[in-house]
Amino acid sequence: MRDGDLERKLQEIIAGIKPPDPKAAQEAARRQNRLTKPPGSLGRLEELSVRLAGIRGDPLPEVRRKAIIVMAGDHGVAEEGVSAYPQEVTSQMVANFLAGGAGINVLGRHVGARVVVVNMGVKYPVPKSPEIRGGEGAERYIERPLGLGTANFAREPAMSREQALRSLLAGAEILEEEAERGLDIVGVGDMGIGNTTASAAIASVMLRRKPEEVVGRGTGVDERGLERKIKAVREGLELHRPSPEDPVGVLAGVGGFEIGGIAGVILGAAARRIPVVLDGFIAGAAALIAAALAPLSRDYMIASHLSAERGHKLILEKLELRPLLDLEMRLGEGTGAALGIFLCEAAAKILREMATFEEAGVSEKIE
Amino acid sequence: MRDGDLERKLQEIIAGIKPPDPKAAQEAARRQNRLTKPPGSLGRLEELSVRLAGIRGDPLPEVRRKAIIVMAGDHGVAEEGVSAYPQEVTSQMVANFLAGGAGINVLGRHVGARVVVVNMGVKYPVPKSPEIRGGEGAERYIERPLGLGTANFAREPAMSREQALRSLLAGAEILEEEAERGLDIVGVGDMGIGNTTASAAIASVMLRRKPEEVVGRGTGVDERGLERKIKAVREGLELHRPSPEDPVGVLAGVGGFEIGGIAGVILGAAARRIPVVLDGFIAGAAALIAAALAPLSRDYMIASHLSAERGHKLILEKLELRPLLDLEMRLGEGTGAALGIFLCEAAAKILREMATFEEAGVSEKIE
Repeated sequence: MRDGDLERKLQEIIAGIKPPDPKAAQEAARRQNRLTKPPGSLGRLEELSVRLAGIRGDPLPEVRRKAIIVMAGDHGVAEEGVSAYPQEVTSQMVANFLAGGAGINVLGRHVGARVVVVNMGVKYPVPKSPEIRGGEGAERYIERPLGLGTANFAREPAMSREQALRSLLAGAEILEEEAERGLDIVGVGDMGIGNTTASAAIASVMLRRKPEEVVGRGTGVDERGLERKIKAVREGLELHRPSPEDPVGVLAGVGGFEIGGIAGVILGAAARRIPVVLDGFIAGAAALIAAALAPLSRDYMIASHLSAERGHKLILEKLELRPLLDLEMRLGEGTGAALGIFLCEAAAKILREMATFEEAGVSEKIE
Repeated sequence: MRDGDLERKLQEIIAGIKPPDPKAAQEAARRQNRLTKPPGSLGRLEELSVRLAGIRGDPLPEVRRKAIIVMAGDHGVAEEGVSAYPQEVTSQMVANFLAGGAGINVLGRHVGARVVVVNMGVKYPVPKSPEIRGGEGAERYIERPLGLGTANFAREPAMSREQALRSLLAGAEILEEEAERGLDIVGVGDMGIGNTTASAAIASVMLRRKPEEVVGRGTGVDERGLERKIKAVREGLELHRPSPEDPVGVLAGVGGFEIGGIAGVILGAAARRIPVVLDGFIAGAAALIAAALAPLSRDYMIASHLSAERGHKLILEKLELRPLLDLEMRLGEGTGAALGIFLCEAAAKILREMATFEEAGVSEKIE
């Protein structure tokens, strides 16, 4: 397929995204006020249940079938010394996801969400999964590599425009497949050594902020590592001059395969009216791409947590999303999204399962 | 039993409270740094797992057997017009808890915690439980009434010193019974029309703050209701002049049966090395009483959330506890505690179930 065909396919997905259903949301809000509690006393859980109703077009939405899609990819910019970990960790962590020993496996099991791992283009072969005692690993492993990691964006474009388009379409297709298996909510997560640098570059362009305002310490680089990250972002942006008006161009210039994949999942979820729970900084950068391509997709996004990674706050402000949690987490993998999914399920259950004043025979407020 | 005997019994429980185990906590912290994630990247979940290890005296604590104890009681001060709801709602809500239609039933089921409801002294007979379709209700209902609600503390002491002591001992005994059934963590919640007024009076004394600094809108009183609440607290404190040096006297003067019960559960949990997850404002007032009686009990408390109720922030500051969540909730019943229990379980599972770098064959940080 040529770029033009890929662009058309992407535009079709975007055209399928409609606004949430205001009637279902209103009906949910009315029901919240009839449940046996002071109106508003469950705070943001009530608000969340109303959003879920609008997204699903269902005044009593269910959050039962849950998946977390973890997209993995490598980054050429890692050779600039921007990460505290060696690059082979990306592939090693994919093996850990498959074996069930990673943070996202533990939290996915805890919230009853299936974990779907996607190789969007890691550099090293994924080693044989280690034997982890206990819990089960990823439910599904998908290979969709677009290369052995991106190129070093400080020296050349991270990927071609075709690869950028293909990463978006891959994400949307994988969401489609998961939706066919039954899906009420989806969380998105990432794995990729170097990807906070790529995400900072995207955020810098999309938010029109200086690199030093959005570059953080990622997995834990020291002062000099931080300077190298800022320098790499600055060089990449000077070299490719990506425009916020062309989100696919931004992704191609300074993005990552897994970041494009996550943006594609977001677009696909919005088109299918499935709430998509964002993780932290990398998912946030992907959300900026998705929102620029399809402003309506923003209405389907739920911000799970505020990451400790610098720059995440600015991303959420731009997206006009308020995070549900602030636990100083910065692991990625979808770990924050897993906790967010738990809160969405809580909100939906409150709406569905609580008794009304009439049903419970409880007296109402004195007027 | 005379007051002296009751006091002695209480002192015995308090004497049984020992500090958490620093060795188990250190071992948990060391393990966190060997798990396959950048050290510290799970933020407050890591910190929480270390606290749980110290509390349980177990470097790999389990959070499997969970209970939420909901204490209900009525308040004579309700006759001052301090609540937006009529007083019969306390008993009606107890019936709702037993039937399974209340917020705490939904969230208790969601986090897999059994709900234990205690009648510490409600005013009206608990009506026959309504038929609620769906979910199961409270697992256990305990009747320990100390009266048909407290007296109106704006006019006379809320209860006798004997009743205050008995409320504390009842809470500790109920915790003991639940511990015998198997208990890794306990959440505490409340139900009682008028109890934000009693809690504000307690907070005012224990924090040495003016009534207007700690009185909030509770279930949703208007401006005039708020003024009546402040006036009732001021009158009660002027009348009884309770001293922060005598927490049992504070409870007797301006407290509530269910507030004493919650404080007793906290003391009992600390004595049994069981983490106790606080709910919002009312549980916070009870925690102030518990911490004043037994400063070490503070080490066993986990603050689930920051309530939207005014004054809760000051209580948590005094207790030196940082809430895990801020979802603008103010329902009580233990609903915030239920969400906090979920996070504790997540933290414990991370510690127990994640693979170490060695186990997973993942490369460590570049030094």
